[in-house]
Amino acid sequence: MTAPWITYRPALKVLDCTVRDGGLINDHAFEDGFVKAVYDACVTAGVDYMELGYKASKKLFARDKCGAWKFCDEDDLRRIVGDNPTPLRLTAMADAGKSDWRTDILPKKDSVLSMIRVAFYAHQVPEAVDMIKDAADKGYEVSANLMAASTVAEVEMDQVLEVIAQTPASVLVVVDSYGAMYAEQIELLVKKYQTYGKETGKEVGIHAHNNQQLAFANTIEAIIHGANRVDASMAGLGRGAGNCPMELLIGFLRNPKFRNRPIYQVIQDHVLPLSRTLEWGPYVQYNITGQLNEHPRSAITARAGGCRDKYVDFYDKLTGGE
Amino acid sequence: MTAPWITYRPALKVLDCTVRDGGLINDHAFEDGFVKAVYDACVTAGVDYMELGYKASKKLFARDKCGAWKFCDEDDLRRIVGDNPTPLRLTAMADAGKSDWRTDILPKKDSVLSMIRVAFYAHQVPEAVDMIKDAADKGYEVSANLMAASTVAEVEMDQVLEVIAQTPASVLVVVDSYGAMYAEQIELLVKKYQTYGKETGKEVGIHAHNNQQLAFANTIEAIIHGANRVDASMAGLGRGAGNCPMELLIGFLRNPKFRNRPIYQVIQDHVLPLSRTLEWGPYVQYNITGQLNEHPRSAITARAGGCRDKYVDFYDKLTGGE
Repeated sequence: MTAPWITYRPALKVLDCTVRDGGLINDHAFEDGFVKAVYDACVTAGVDYMELGYKASKKLFARDKCGAWKFCDEDDLRRIVGDNPTPLRLTAMADAGKSDWRTDILPKKDSVLSMIRVAFYAHQVPEAVDMIKDAADKGYEVSANLMAASTVAEVEMDQVLEVIAQTPASVLVVVDSYGAMYAEQIELLVKKYQTYGKETGKEVGIHAHNNQQLAFANTIEAIIHGANRVDASMAGLGRGAGNCPMELLIGFLRNPKFRNRPIYQVIQDHVLPLSRTLEWGPYVQYNITGQLNEHPRSAITARAGGCRDKYVDFYDKLTGGE
Repeated sequence: MTAPWITYRPALKVLDCTVRDGGLINDHAFEDGFVKAVYDACVTAGVDYMELGYKASKKLFARDKCGAWKFCDEDDLRRIVGDNPTPLRLTAMADAGKSDWRTDILPKKDSVLSMIRVAFYAHQVPEAVDMIKDAADKGYEVSANLMAASTVAEVEMDQVLEVIAQTPASVLVVVDSYGAMYAEQIELLVKKYQTYGKETGKEVGIHAHNNQQLAFANTIEAIIHGANRVDASMAGLGRGAGNCPMELLIGFLRNPKFRNRPIYQVIQDHVLPLSRTLEWGPYVQYNITGQLNEHPRSAITARAGGCRDKYVDFYDKLTGGE
């Protein structure tokens, strides 16, 4: 495939992570109307997967301090999607170390979810392997999402991928949690994940963050090199700098099943109003943490306080000045 | 050069177009303090060129209806930069069809400018050739900027480049006026411009617009393929969706002569305050004109009126709905 912008690959599937990644800004406290609007937009736009939130532990996180989408209980899911009589496949994410996955992830026959995405750091591989196996045994399609890939040294990366390759996960996602990667690194990792995933027939995915305004460009880069599972969110809604904007991605893809008009509609009617109280996007503090290949937490703190416009102080704090 | 992100090319020169392209938003009416602050930041940051505005015709444009940077009279320039006792080279742009270049561009010995950038559409090549020759004869370094390259058919493009290749311009700039190009098109055009410019030793440049959040990514792409003249602006300030953000570019480049701190400083103290009264950035309307490979004027009009949040109406108007 040398010209993906002229034709299209039927195997390329788009995943909407608006409610899951966006939930990291507001403790997953979206109103039902918002979640339903995103769901309806995904269905109408031809999006393949929608991620609704996390399967987080109720022992670690108080049920009354977080919104429903932190836990994705079956009742909450069905209040929005009923039995989901649509081609849109639903997914939730389970974090290694933060989920009672043995009990909280139901057998697939009892759930409206189709896929579980297991998110883990490199040091959490042993639990991730168990989680992947558990979800697959319960009947789910499973995605393995190694977080903060930009900070994993190559020798460790190879070991992680060797182990994950043997699991029943059918998707390996290149996750640029810090928005630190340039196109060359995306190419390198997509090819590496493909090499490891080939024997067991795994697809490779991409989840980009927009710290350096590269989320869309890096997503295209991954697609060009064969990534067939692509994350995006409405207006880029997501933690910190946000994600690859769905409206740009759908405008780029050539599969005639995709429609951009419902995306613009949900952005106009539901996401834009959110931006009056929530903030996300490639602000200078996120540029800086991305360039430094750091977790955005310092940038999130800086922008939440009274110093959101003090770019130079923030730069000096992180670099020691110059 | 296979790894420009590890080492650097001394031949790579950065041009700041903040005041010139940003002037398209406010009829070039920047206050002296703003222009001086950008100038000082460029000097301290190690930027190579600064573009101050246009050499526009005073017969076509009333002197009292536009700011000084529409005309870049020598007195106005010197009020800011004196005799410019710095390594920063200064430039102004002259548009074919809109400039009394024969009289208004002074001999270089009488000007603080070092370079003239001649901007032209494909159908204006004959005048552009005369303009380039005139500026070169007067002693300037000259850049040839073919605008809206994404709309020029390949056969016409080849004819234009064949003619421009024979002029004394030392730089050919790939200009994505509509923010419509993806990385593949940037690669194709950079290589094509290089092919035509090779015989007469011309460098290739890149001027990107951010309609699809690809200005920085496309600028990197051009650099990877050998473009050595790179445009950017402070916080991306520029018409419509704006340009490649200087703070991202400088963060990417590895030449130790560049400093990002003064860039953050001028953004914090001078550009951010502007954003309270001027608007630029990759808003949805600009996404749409970029995807459709159209001039952003319809998007500019839509955002200036009372319908700036009516994304779907705008989409329907441009596409006929679906």
